[in-house]
Amino acid sequence: MSDERETKNIMEYETVALDDEDNALVILDQTKLPGTAELIRLHTGEEIWEAIYLLKVRGAPAIGVAAAFGIYLLAKQIKTQEYDAFYQEFSRQKEYLNSARPTAVNLSWALNRMEKICTRNSSLPVAEIKKKLKEEAVALKEEDIRVCRAIGEHGLTLVKPGDGILTHCNAGQLATCRYGTATAPIYLGQERGYHFRVFADETRPLLQGARLTAYELYASGVDVTLICDNMSAAVMRNGWVNAVFVGCDRVAANGDTANKIGTSVVAAVAKRYHVPVYVCAPTSTIDLNTPTGAEIIIEQRPPHEVTDMWYEKPMAPAGVKVYNPAFDVTDHDLIAGIVTEYGIAREPYTESLREIFVKHHKLS
Amino acid sequence: MSDERETKNIMEYETVALDDEDNALVILDQTKLPGTAELIRLHTGEEIWEAIYLLKVRGAPAIGVAAAFGIYLLAKQIKTQEYDAFYQEFSRQKEYLNSARPTAVNLSWALNRMEKICTRNSSLPVAEIKKKLKEEAVALKEEDIRVCRAIGEHGLTLVKPGDGILTHCNAGQLATCRYGTATAPIYLGQERGYHFRVFADETRPLLQGARLTAYELYASGVDVTLICDNMSAAVMRNGWVNAVFVGCDRVAANGDTANKIGTSVVAAVAKRYHVPVYVCAPTSTIDLNTPTGAEIIIEQRPPHEVTDMWYEKPMAPAGVKVYNPAFDVTDHDLIAGIVTEYGIAREPYTESLREIFVKHHKLS
Repeated sequence: MSDERETKNIMEYETVALDDEDNALVILDQTKLPGTAELIRLHTGEEIWEAIYLLKVRGAPAIGVAAAFGIYLLAKQIKTQEYDAFYQEFSRQKEYLNSARPTAVNLSWALNRMEKICTRNSSLPVAEIKKKLKEEAVALKEEDIRVCRAIGEHGLTLVKPGDGILTHCNAGQLATCRYGTATAPIYLGQERGYHFRVFADETRPLLQGARLTAYELYASGVDVTLICDNMSAAVMRNGWVNAVFVGCDRVAANGDTANKIGTSVVAAVAKRYHVPVYVCAPTSTIDLNTPTGAEIIIEQRPPHEVTDMWYEKPMAPAGVKVYNPAFDVTDHDLIAGIVTEYGIAREPYTESLREIFVKHHKLS
Repeated sequence: MSDERETKNIMEYETVALDDEDNALVILDQTKLPGTAELIRLHTGEEIWEAIYLLKVRGAPAIGVAAAFGIYLLAKQIKTQEYDAFYQEFSRQKEYLNSARPTAVNLSWALNRMEKICTRNSSLPVAEIKKKLKEEAVALKEEDIRVCRAIGEHGLTLVKPGDGILTHCNAGQLATCRYGTATAPIYLGQERGYHFRVFADETRPLLQGARLTAYELYASGVDVTLICDNMSAAVMRNGWVNAVFVGCDRVAANGDTANKIGTSVVAAVAKRYHVPVYVCAPTSTIDLNTPTGAEIIIEQRPPHEVTDMWYEKPMAPAGVKVYNPAFDVTDHDLIAGIVTEYGIAREPYTESLREIFVKHHKLS
């Protein structure tokens, strides 16, 4: 019973929040889920960097909002009233936070947006700039919620009531501020009585699918079945999956998509079973300056995540070599559509993605 | 240092052995690897059934040999000297052992071979039949070693020195009596200085790849890298894999192959990256009476293997639904060749597999 109660309560926590009075970034520590729902308060640059690096806060949109609140809090503590000195220290802190995760474009995207607040307002007193930084970070969070809801609406047009949906990793509410990206069509559908049957890949090595996606969907009353990553072909062969929805960490100009390791495995399997794969991508994760997936740097993570995680007894021979990339690239030809807040982009992505940016004045 | 010593020593244990004097089936408890190398002695039918059910002994060929030794030991303990009563009890014990795992054809194949010893020699005294049962079980083990070596020789013609090889689950020495099936080309190549670069899928949920394959290859000095099941596309995209070798639990007449869950995922990914997939199959695992993969019964295993395994803290929400099939079916068109002890079968498998059986008088 206590398990169930906790499962329900957790959805009332905010993934990322600002406590301005306490100078704290408040996040739900996702490494402790689904066992413990613990809010942690981060004050220093090191604490914020570490929370991003260790995936205490994760998911591209949530990382972006956390970084925005984080850099605001660090900027607030800068003592000088002199713009140049202020900006120099701001830039140093910004670069530091930006180094926590190399693949997620939202991290640098959010930090760059915050930096522009400084440079555009360099003539204002530093105290005014700090106020504007806070407004921008808050706006960024509100935007995230609007964007996720819009992605949900567009995504919902791709499925019908009763459909089976497979998802990988967590591009859920816990990865954003609300609704999630890949889960947004599921949550909106749920509100409208669509009754989807969802399959959640557990997502080794860090089990975001088991710990987070299965958790939040189950807590929300969605019909979710947990599977291991190597079971996607079995469920598709059974005819149980009508569509795959995944999030993304960076979409290149040609539609190649970097997302959690294993996404391209799901995509290859889905191709085999004629199941369409949809990438749910806020335009903030689309990077027209990266021509193709080949230019995306893939973060490599330490072996112990694969060999030692949480186990009471060894699960691999001591000293064995491990390859542990955090992401992989899914080729654009395996992607049936890229669902943005402005609509669904289709092949050829080089044109359709650019069109969205032009139409919505997103080209800088 | 103690870790290393244990890693080396373990290869000197026998996977499956008979201690006739003690009326014991002696197996290396594979659920304790790679932490502890523990030989366990099984005396009763229940102990043997449980060891097979709980995967303490696993891998189709090793299960076959264990079942043969097991049924011999159980037959030996039958008190009556009267053939009909003996055979009735033998059949009961045989059916009981046969119920431990539904998918591996070797289990029933080995038990049927043992049964034929009884029916063919029904005119002999029961004591003589028991002697012949022992001879058959010992022969079965020796055959297994010869068969694996032959598979290794044929498989070795499919790769060249320096090649990258990916394998899934454990069709290694620990799954057989020596050499393994999928690992036989690797071990023979190693003896001849081929220096393969092997990638071992960890193989969720029970991690046979991490615990057993990575373990035995590492212990044997093979260059092995452990990956999660969802990383196969990443390593193939990097161009690191020239061939996939996997074992099998049952091959249908048309070449469709049931093997550890995830094998068909690897095969779909390999297809995408133009990497050939070879199934290493002793003819004992080829079942011409099963027309296609659709007729293979897939064992379903309990949810806790996915949600609770060894963890100190929860890795999934309490009560969430889990789908946990032990095997999946890989369609024959994804398989570049089926490597048997008699040579390599190619498409169309319905003809090439039948040919092997006809040529080697295997059709019953």
